[in-house]
Amino acid sequence: MGGDHAPDIVVEGLAIAGERHPEARFLLVGDQARINPLLMRHARVRAACTVRHADEVIGNDLKPTAALRLRGASMRVAIDAVAASEAAGVVTAGNTGALLALAKIIIKTLPGIDRPAIAGIGPSARGDVVMLDLGANITCDARNLVEFAVMGDVFARTVLGLTAPTIGLLNVGSEEMKGDDSLRGAAEVLKASHIGPQFYGFIEGHDIGAGTTDVVVTDGFSGNVAMKTGEGALRLIGELLRQVFSSSLAAKLGYLLARPGLERLREFLDPRRYNGAVMLGLNGVVVKSHGGTDAEGFAHAMDVAMDMVVHRFNDRMREGLARIVGLNAAALSKDQDDGGAARLATAR
Amino acid sequence: MGGDHAPDIVVEGLAIAGERHPEARFLLVGDQARINPLLMRHARVRAACTVRHADEVIGNDLKPTAALRLRGASMRVAIDAVAASEAAGVVTAGNTGALLALAKIIIKTLPGIDRPAIAGIGPSARGDVVMLDLGANITCDARNLVEFAVMGDVFARTVLGLTAPTIGLLNVGSEEMKGDDSLRGAAEVLKASHIGPQFYGFIEGHDIGAGTTDVVVTDGFSGNVAMKTGEGALRLIGELLRQVFSSSLAAKLGYLLARPGLERLREFLDPRRYNGAVMLGLNGVVVKSHGGTDAEGFAHAMDVAMDMVVHRFNDRMREGLARIVGLNAAALSKDQDDGGAARLATAR
Repeated sequence: MGGDHAPDIVVEGLAIAGERHPEARFLLVGDQARINPLLMRHARVRAACTVRHADEVIGNDLKPTAALRLRGASMRVAIDAVAASEAAGVVTAGNTGALLALAKIIIKTLPGIDRPAIAGIGPSARGDVVMLDLGANITCDARNLVEFAVMGDVFARTVLGLTAPTIGLLNVGSEEMKGDDSLRGAAEVLKASHIGPQFYGFIEGHDIGAGTTDVVVTDGFSGNVAMKTGEGALRLIGELLRQVFSSSLAAKLGYLLARPGLERLREFLDPRRYNGAVMLGLNGVVVKSHGGTDAEGFAHAMDVAMDMVVHRFNDRMREGLARIVGLNAAALSKDQDDGGAARLATAR
Repeated sequence: MGGDHAPDIVVEGLAIAGERHPEARFLLVGDQARINPLLMRHARVRAACTVRHADEVIGNDLKPTAALRLRGASMRVAIDAVAASEAAGVVTAGNTGALLALAKIIIKTLPGIDRPAIAGIGPSARGDVVMLDLGANITCDARNLVEFAVMGDVFARTVLGLTAPTIGLLNVGSEEMKGDDSLRGAAEVLKASHIGPQFYGFIEGHDIGAGTTDVVVTDGFSGNVAMKTGEGALRLIGELLRQVFSSSLAAKLGYLLARPGLERLREFLDPRRYNGAVMLGLNGVVVKSHGGTDAEGFAHAMDVAMDMVVHRFNDRMREGLARIVGLNAAALSKDQDDGGAARLATAR
């Protein structure tokens, strides 16, 4: 029931995703009086669906603390189903803050994870790039960043199908002395870890679009800013190109001639293709669709969730976390706030 | 002598800028054996130039602490000339960290400024946007952000010629509860300040390209990441468009037909047009050109410096700072590190 066009685009998106994943079964949670008529239009996917009625909806402006009290809200009922292992994961276009709070408290974090992170996929000159955290954690210590790297590694293997994804730590320069203690400490630990051979080192903002690494690790503030700044830049160019191609008759004709390539470019950069931010580090798959997306975008978010379930993302996460904990138990202890970098460097 | 193509592009750029600013006089600092022959090619600007020989050059990899010891380096001699009021400002394509350290110590900060910031100009859907800090300060408290806003306001008036530039604080959401104490504290102070009517509130990454505000205020880490991510996204599209327009004969013809508009777009987004990051908050004008720029780009950096000198940027900065100090002396006191937001909110 969340997002700008629910439940319509959710059911429409489900119909698209259902065709791509004929083996899947879906639990639809929300106002059945609105959902059932929509399902009538899609006979094929309807057979794979169970509708569970929920009276309440968590509005987009509701604070997480208030959302926690709405036990009958559709998002809550869906998350309860994941916690009870009735569902392998949840996909929603609803309130991000509420989703994160509910997921943390009800689905709970994986053993060894201090804080869950939000990951997303974006375009680059060398293919898809995974970035995290996109906003779950405003400030992060070295331990958090290391955990994000481990989660990003497994996510890139699972969803992008890479065998040894390269990993970069976002910084203001590539030299070793750049950044704060958290960044330098995380770099030290990662170099010595099982993903050390995949660890590229520090990268800068322009490396995201260049695709210098497959995974970009950063704190939730910078990650959120970087993701939205990149989106804004792409939107700016899209708008300017539209103006160029409608500025004269010759330009319009030029557009028609170059159209196949321009259409491919548009598809490559289509925000719907990158829809589905994932909350990693939880005891279940949690995918957040953009609130303003359409059916095609929602179907992409479902694809991401399906990939994670089918490729047993969380089992592989547990393996990755176990290796990090074994290697760096001392270095990753939580009380490394002051002088963290030095201790992290010497503890390995 | 700094940057990838010095002193050649510096003299070539000077020749271009000299035509645009016939009233200006230039002090060229560096290896006179290399500079003088270059100047011979530009008789007109040569008449406006004095060459001051400097033996040493601060390399791009030299650490700021080591750079401070090179008293005979061209950058140092140029900065000494500003400190001695022989020159109104300095423009260099050299080592950024060294420039910042030398400028802080030798030119010194303006009274009332805790930390200088680096500001730059970039493109948006609604014209040029000023962003600061771009990397001088990795972490910032509320006081720093407020000072950046005051500096950004004066910079946008001086260099963009705006009468009442709008100012946004970069955050991960536009709601008042978003962000950390520094951001919320700075927002409180700005609302109550003389630039309160221009203060838009919190903005997000996509607002930079949308041009939601004329000035974007943020800490040096996020600002650096945002600037480089935006540049990277523009470069990615530029590369993809080049591929599209060379992918077929029809596409090549299409390019030719749409060329006038595409050329205007290329010029609008040309990184050289935005060359010249400015160090604000110092007792003199300090402009850093991109190290890899060409003569046209270096000339743009000189234009920025000229605008700041001609429009008496620092006099207007002193006025702005006096108003902020008068209004919020208590709130802006330096010892607001813990519980800063609460104190800032109550002190006004």
